[in-house]
Amino acid sequence: MARFAINRKESFGKPPGSVVFIGKKRVETVGIELITFDQGSYDEVAIPVTDHVTLPEPDGRLQWYNVIGLHDTDLVRELGDQFDLHDLLLEDVVNTELRPRMEEFDNCLFFSLKMLRFDEVKNLIYSEQVSIVLRENLVITFQEEPGDVFDLIRDRIRTKKGKVRQSGADYLTFALLDMIFDHYSSAVENFGDVIEDLETDLLDNPTSDMLNQINQFKREINFLRKHIRPARELAFQYSKTESPLIHKATRQYLKELAANAAHASEIIDSYANMLSDFLHVYHTSMSSKINDVMKILTIFSAIFIPLTFIAGIYGTNFDFLPELHWKYSYAVFWGVLILVGLIMLNYFRRKGWF
Amino acid sequence: MARFAINRKESFGKPPGSVVFIGKKRVETVGIELITFDQGSYDEVAIPVTDHVTLPEPDGRLQWYNVIGLHDTDLVRELGDQFDLHDLLLEDVVNTELRPRMEEFDNCLFFSLKMLRFDEVKNLIYSEQVSIVLRENLVITFQEEPGDVFDLIRDRIRTKKGKVRQSGADYLTFALLDMIFDHYSSAVENFGDVIEDLETDLLDNPTSDMLNQINQFKREINFLRKHIRPARELAFQYSKTESPLIHKATRQYLKELAANAAHASEIIDSYANMLSDFLHVYHTSMSSKINDVMKILTIFSAIFIPLTFIAGIYGTNFDFLPELHWKYSYAVFWGVLILVGLIMLNYFRRKGWF
Amino acid sequence: MARFAINRKESFGKPPGSVVFIGKKRVETVGIELITFDQGSYDEVAIPVTDHVTLPEPDGRLQWYNVIGLHDTDLVRELGDQFDLHDLLLEDVVNTELRPRMEEFDNCLFFSLKMLRFDEVKNLIYSEQVSIVLRENLVITFQEEPGDVFDLIRDRIRTKKGKVRQSGADYLTFALLDMIFDHYSSAVENFGDVIEDLETDLLDNPTSDMLNQINQFKREINFLRKHIRPARELAFQYSKTESPLIHKATRQYLKELAANAAHASEIIDSYANMLSDFLHVYHTSMSSKINDVMKILTIFSAIFIPLTFIAGIYGTNFDFLPELHWKYSYAVFWGVLILVGLIMLNYFRRKGWF
Amino acid sequence: MARFAINRKESFGKPPGSVVFIGKKRVETVGIELITFDQGSYDEVAIPVTDHVTLPEPDGRLQWYNVIGLHDTDLVRELGDQFDLHDLLLEDVVNTELRPRMEEFDNCLFFSLKMLRFDEVKNLIYSEQVSIVLRENLVITFQEEPGDVFDLIRDRIRTKKGKVRQSGADYLTFALLDMIFDHYSSAVENFGDVIEDLETDLLDNPTSDMLNQINQFKREINFLRKHIRPARELAFQYSKTESPLIHKATRQYLKELAANAAHASEIIDSYANMLSDFLHVYHTSMSSKINDVMKILTIFSAIFIPLTFIAGIYGTNFDFLPELHWKYSYAVFWGVLILVGLIMLNYFRRKGWF
Amino acid sequence: MARFAINRKESFGKPPGSVVFIGKKRVETVGIELITFDQGSYDEVAIPVTDHVTLPEPDGRLQWYNVIGLHDTDLVRELGDQFDLHDLLLEDVVNTELRPRMEEFDNCLFFSLKMLRFDEVKNLIYSEQVSIVLRENLVITFQEEPGDVFDLIRDRIRTKKGKVRQSGADYLTFALLDMIFDHYSSAVENFGDVIEDLETDLLDNPTSDMLNQINQFKREINFLRKHIRPARELAFQYSKTESPLIHKATRQYLKELAANAAHASEIIDSYANMLSDFLHVYHTSMSSKINDVMKILTIFSAIFIPLTFIAGIYGTNFDFLPELHWKYSYAVFWGVLILVGLIMLNYFRRKGWF
Repeated sequence: MARFAINRKESFGKPPGSVVFIGKKRVETVGIELITFDQGSYDEVAIPVTDHVTLPEPDGRLQWYNVIGLHDTDLVRELGDQFDLHDLLLEDVVNTELRPRMEEFDNCLFFSLKMLRFDEVKNLIYSEQVSIVLRENLVITFQEEPGDVFDLIRDRIRTKKGKVRQSGADYLTFALLDMIFDHYSSAVENFGDVIEDLETDLLDNPTSDMLNQINQFKREINFLRKHIRPARELAFQYSKTESPLIHKATRQYLKELAANAAHASEIIDSYANMLSDFLHVYHTSMSSKINDVMKILTIFSAIFIPLTFIAGIYGTNFDFLPELHWKYSYAVFWGVLILVGLIMLNYFRRKGWF
Repeated sequence: MARFAINRKESFGKPPGSVVFIGKKRVETVGIELITFDQGSYDEVAIPVTDHVTLPEPDGRLQWYNVIGLHDTDLVRELGDQFDLHDLLLEDVVNTELRPRMEEFDNCLFFSLKMLRFDEVKNLIYSEQVSIVLRENLVITFQEEPGDVFDLIRDRIRTKKGKVRQSGADYLTFALLDMIFDHYSSAVENFGDVIEDLETDLLDNPTSDMLNQINQFKREINFLRKHIRPARELAFQYSKTESPLIHKATRQYLKELAANAAHASEIIDSYANMLSDFLHVYHTSMSSKINDVMKILTIFSAIFIPLTFIAGIYGTNFDFLPELHWKYSYAVFWGVLILVGLIMLNYFRRKGWF
Repeated sequence: MARFAINRKESFGKPPGSVVFIGKKRVETVGIELITFDQGSYDEVAIPVTDHVTLPEPDGRLQWYNVIGLHDTDLVRELGDQFDLHDLLLEDVVNTELRPRMEEFDNCLFFSLKMLRFDEVKNLIYSEQVSIVLRENLVITFQEEPGDVFDLIRDRIRTKKGKVRQSGADYLTFALLDMIFDHYSSAVENFGDVIEDLETDLLDNPTSDMLNQINQFKREINFLRKHIRPARELAFQYSKTESPLIHKATRQYLKELAANAAHASEIIDSYANMLSDFLHVYHTSMSSKINDVMKILTIFSAIFIPLTFIAGIYGTNFDFLPELHWKYSYAVFWGVLILVGLIMLNYFRRKGWF
Repeated sequence: MARFAINRKESFGKPPGSVVFIGKKRVETVGIELITFDQGSYDEVAIPVTDHVTLPEPDGRLQWYNVIGLHDTDLVRELGDQFDLHDLLLEDVVNTELRPRMEEFDNCLFFSLKMLRFDEVKNLIYSEQVSIVLRENLVITFQEEPGDVFDLIRDRIRTKKGKVRQSGADYLTFALLDMIFDHYSSAVENFGDVIEDLETDLLDNPTSDMLNQINQFKREINFLRKHIRPARELAFQYSKTESPLIHKATRQYLKELAANAAHASEIIDSYANMLSDFLHVYHTSMSSKINDVMKILTIFSAIFIPLTFIAGIYGTNFDFLPELHWKYSYAVFWGVLILVGLIMLNYFRRKGWF
Repeated sequence: MARFAINRKESFGKPPGSVVFIGKKRVETVGIELITFDQGSYDEVAIPVTDHVTLPEPDGRLQWYNVIGLHDTDLVRELGDQFDLHDLLLEDVVNTELRPRMEEFDNCLFFSLKMLRFDEVKNLIYSEQVSIVLRENLVITFQEEPGDVFDLIRDRIRTKKGKVRQSGADYLTFALLDMIFDHYSSAVENFGDVIEDLETDLLDNPTSDMLNQINQFKREINFLRKHIRPARELAFQYSKTESPLIHKATRQYLKELAANAAHASEIIDSYANMLSDFLHVYHTSMSSKINDVMKILTIFSAIFIPLTFIAGIYGTNFDFLPELHWKYSYAVFWGVLILVGLIMLNYFRRKGWF
């Protein structure tokens, strides 16, 4: 399948706003978690998912719904109806190939982006689609499978660490995005370490394996860039939105978020440029090597080919070849050979070839 | 003929607004289809095309005229008169080489773009000029030949699927553009699959066939890009226009349309960059191969040329050549040959050449 | 002379606004043609040019003066005085090396650009400086020599074809510019055909002639681009100007003009990029060829140099060289030669070299 | 560690606004210096740092606090509380990997950037994080270790040189930034000298050492660029801010600051481009050298290989080889050899090879 | 010294606004010339420079002071005091390494740029720092040494040519800048001629000298670009400034000035691009040459190495080598040699190698 797939194949030709799941089904049953909290109290429940989902009434406290598993489009649609979400928003929620974006709807802000987790043991980056809906006193997150980068935020809610418990839905959304971006930065750094190791090797001894490696890194960095760059726009848009859902106190945090996203994106670009330079260096260093090989060949050829020719002359069988019969010919012959050899060697030495 | 042809040859020097057909005549007789519908009822008729065309009176329901075949400029002019369309608009309708664009006229919005259909059997992309005129309660589409990407929309109208039946002319126009863009995405994806296959081969074993292939792909991607990039601007312009023809409810869809067009356009650019990288990789990998070939040549030459020289010395016919007559000379000779050979081999092995 | 010459040498150090002719004198005597027309009537006269020029009184109809020949700066200055034109405008009129531009003066709009005519017989592009002054009910064009691209417009005026006769000075100016741009497009297309022919040849069999050709095309496309790009800005500026000289009805045409100029400019860029790619392809394909040549050399050398060495051994004249005297030596010798040759051939075949 | 590290590892997952020290601890104990001055009087004290820090009451004069050492986050937080600074500001103060930025808070302006000091003896650039907080009548600077670029400003305060004593906090902040930027310019210049030395060597005799050097310089210039470019934005932002903290008289200085920062940034870019050109020149010059080596090889081979062949013919032992027995054969043989050699030499000379 | 030097070394650490001379002292004593004029009268005096400078009272006519020599910073400061100039302005006046800029002060406009004079005899471009201060009824120019590009303007003042005598300080400033820009254009053109000569040579016969030359031209064009590009911004800024010092009548001239500066800047870029292309062409053409050399080597080797081998076989001394004793062996031997040679020649000819 194409790497940069838009992958609307499944939704191809469907009316816009059709809730069609695009992606690989990663989990069997859909789960819904609800955390309700304000400064004073805190509740955590799992909503049972059957044919019909009954959601608890909002009680004035901030609600954070987390929906795990996106393939059950009927459920997503039902949730959408209960929360009065636009059908385009729902279409985007279940499309795991969507370009990261923020969209403003009448009653909510919608964020769609990739969540990256770096598995240090397997040296792999896991990527998962996550959507965030921000409404007054309500945050809904949609993710593809259990396990996410939000556990630290759940901890902060439980332990009242930081400002999450004192703040509103806009701050919680900021905190979720900030956590996702922290993981971007972390992935970028891990990647940077590997690239810089390669650089040292490249300058020492370029091999054709490295050419493959440079290429592979280029692909991976393009993958990262594809997700992080639009996320930067998203953060910038979020910090600039005039939606009444954002309180004044949160603005300063959003500016910080946008600045950090810009920083991560810049660093990615730095690494991408480094890789392009690597290719250039590899190529230049290869032509330098060709030059060296050529010199060796030329030195050997230019010395021994004339000598062989001289020897060839006295290997001829002419009847009248006076030098052959002179007593000191052989010694002179050797002298000439050595002389010619030395002249050639000197010639190349003066050219600075060795 | 030039690939990026502007091809105003036929209209060359004609007064602006002259309705001159530019392109290849693809159909014998022009056809006009009319679909009239509102939420409740639905009619589909073919308008007979004779010397004079009689159009049914609008009855308050939304009318969608589809004109097939653009070479009959008299007919187009007559339709233009009946619908009160600007002569510049008509000139653009029959110009199949036009750059995709949206233009605002006093009484209508005009869209001109390419419709791409990927034929999976023949592995070919068919391209056809399509123009859309959006007026109050009226949509007119012009296309070059029968067969288009709109059948799914006709189905939705017939079966009341989606929102087309409930919405106005602006939504229908959106739906038509969305369908065209869906086909762009699909073409891009199909193309991406082929490019990525090439990449694997390229790293494994670059051949000069691939150079040709990279070039051909570059041309094809330029073709796609030429059509999709301005279509992106078109979508953006449509989503931003302040024309009273657009209802508020449709705006959200137009934003989505613009975002999707932007996405498709970005992916095209990614593939174009990949192809440029391929050329670079091919080139670098070629110089790496030259280096390898040079090494083999140098190893053989540097070992055997000196040996041949030594043999040459003892092939000379000097009368006084003492070594020739010594009993163990031949054995020593072989010893020297082997020794020199081993020294050379060792020298290259230490250089890491094999 | 420098190709991209600014060429103010003649005006060097002159006070700004000095009317100094810059360019080559292309015509002996200056000619002035006047076409006066409105919807109803039409007159065409040649104004006699003597020491003093007497211009007919304006009679309420639209006047189009066409001045042929720019070297008679006294005449230009006199005309300027009679028409009350700014001295900077006059300086620009007689400078044939001016960058295409549009300028707004108090009482008029001024356009300066190149007129390109493609001579299909000689396969050459002729370029000529043309200036257009647009005032209320008055258009003045200045050109370097007789013969221009405006004959079709004169025909339209004479035959009342198109809208020129019904419209004002702003439409006439548009029509003149549109005609000039039509010729740009035509030049670009002709050029494109030649470039695309080259592409086919390049992929089949790159020769060093093509390198020269690519370079020459690059130069020519730069020439075209130098004139067409700023003309695009000019068209855009014209379509955006808020000058009261432009009537509302003409605006739509100006937008079209700007779009077409943008299109021509984009196509030029496409061809320029194609040429850059050609250079890259040429280079890559050259290194691929070097590789092929190297392989042939290496195969021959690596097979025959060892064989020659073996033959050389048995050409030595050692007294005690037992193999020489054995009856089957020669046959075995041949066997060894053939064996070694086959081993080498097999080695290169397995490497995929032939 | 990654070179372009974002390095939020220590703050990873911490709630935003957490004051977590990021960087290497460079100093044991934290020091706080306070300079209080107005036009008439001047005081300099070291604030004792114990568990609790007692700050002197402001007395209407301008206060400049300088905090040395950032690892004691408790102290930073306490200072933050006493000065009523936003927790995001404090988080940024102790993050030594922050991208240079200016941020506006409700009661202050915040600047974070790198201070570069060039050690001419060791030929090294020391870099240190510095944060500046500008409030009404108060400037706070935070730095990592003792020793900074501000001594000259302290001197000016002590000796009443320049305008620092007569001006407010905004001018002092300007003076601090100006000093930091002066050091940037100085670092760039020192670097430029080295690069230009390399250029001369490169054109004279490119060696593969230079390839390494070009690469190292590229890395270093990227390091400089990474710090100086965003500092340029910072200066621009500072000169444009509408904060009431900036007095009218200071604006002109801020414009100058921004212009100088822009200049330094441009010069960096010039050097970066020069380095890219160097790589290109190196590569091209290498292929030119390969060509030279090839020519030498070809001349020797093309002359002596045919000669050796001729000698080989007369080294054959055919019984019937008439030339061998003719008296003048040997002389003719030499004549032929010399003739063939001269023809070849002449051929290459006419090709302009030597 | 670094080429792109900022060179604030002398002012390093000095308080901003310190008048510190930066550059080489080019003249012993400072001179001050004053031209006072209006439409009717005209005066030219040299102001004596002693410890104290006494300036004549303004008499309502336009005053143009020209200060020659910048190293006497005391004098510059004194003049600054008498004319009430900002100390930042004075700092910029004596800094000969300043980036071209225009700055608006409360009571004046300040221009700082390079004056280029092309010495056609020595083929060198002289560059000199010039600053212009524009105030109501007063223009002050500062230059480094006697001799400038303004003599033509002085002539125009003396002879009442052009509009200088009728116009104000703003027009005089325009005229000075226009003259400087005219010299830029002239320098660019002279440079262009040389570059285009190189192009012809490059395509005919690329030598490694040309590589050096291309590089040197690149450096020189960067030098020109460094000065002309910001001057273009300066001209644009001047044409846009809303300062009351500019009269309406002068605006049209300023627009012209900006357009000409833009043109010169574009032409510089064209030449810079041409040089980059040259490097590319040089490189490609070099690899084409390598290919040619390789072909010659391969042809000679591939023909004569096998032939030498065959000769080698019959040079062996095997006792039983039947071919040696057959009467027609030698003739057949020659036949075989010629046959093999012809086959090889034919092979290469069919490959299109010669």
